[in-house]
Amino acid sequence: MNDVQRVCSRFHAAIELIGARWTGAILRAVFTGRHRYAQIKAAVPGVSDTMLAQRLRTLEDEGVLERRVLPSTPVQVEYHLTPKGRDLDEAMEAVRAWADKWIPAKGPPDESAAGHGG
Amino acid sequence: MNDVQRVCSRFHAAIELIGARWTGAILRAVFTGRHRYAQIKAAVPGVSDTMLAQRLRTLEDEGVLERRVLPSTPVQVEYHLTPKGRDLDEAMEAVRAWADKWIPAKGPPDESAAGHGG
Repeated sequence: MNDVQRVCSRFHAAIELIGARWTGAILRAVFTGRHRYAQIKAAVPGVSDTMLAQRLRTLEDEGVLERRVLPSTPVQVEYHLTPKGRDLDEAMEAVRAWADKWIPAKGPPDESAAGHGG
Repeated sequence: MNDVQRVCSRFHAAIELIGARWTGAILRAVFTGRHRYAQIKAAVPGVSDTMLAQRLRTLEDEGVLERRVLPSTPVQVEYHLTPKGRDLDEAMEAVRAWADKWIPAKGPPDESAAGHGG
C-alpha cells in the first residue's frame, strides 16, 4: 500500500465508524452526560432496542465506549467514553458544524437554509 | 422531524459526501494545489478515469468544487474549491487526525500503530 492508500484506508475506517446510522446521536448523548441505556435511548428518538444495543456493542468493541457495570442492586450499566471516544468529539463537531452551515435543512419551509452566503 | 433527526440527517449528508470512496483523496489533491485533471489523477493512485470523472462531477454538483474552463488552446480545465469546499478542510482534517491517531495502520508490520497511549 502506498501512503495515499494508507491514509485513505484509515480515513474510511473512521468515516465508517462515525457515519453508521445512529452512531452520531448515540455518541452525542454520551458526550453530553447521558450514560445509562435509558438516557441514551431517550436522546436518540426512533432507534430500536435491537439497533441501540448493537451500536453500543460495536462502539464498545471499537474501543470508543467503555461499558461499566456498577455494583448496585439492581445492577446498573453505564457507558462512558474512552480516550479514543473522547478524541472523536472534535472530528464529529467539525463535520456537524460544516453540515449545519452548508447542508440545507430538510423540514418546515420556515426553517431557512442559512449559511449559503459563503 | 425533531431536532435530533434534523441534525442527524444533515450530519449524514455530510458523511456521505466526504465518505464516498476517493473523495477524500481527490479533495486532498485540490486542497494541496492540484487543479488539473491529470494532476488530481496522479495524486489519487488506483482511481479509474470513469470513477474520477464521476466524483469530480458529483463534487461540482454538490457545490464543493468549481470547474473552470480556461480560455487557452487546447482548452484547459481546472477544478477549484468553492467556499463550501474550502470549509470542508477542517472537518476532513479532524477526521484524518483522529484516524491517524487511533486507527491501526494496515501495512507492513514495521509500521507500528502509534498513538494508542491515550
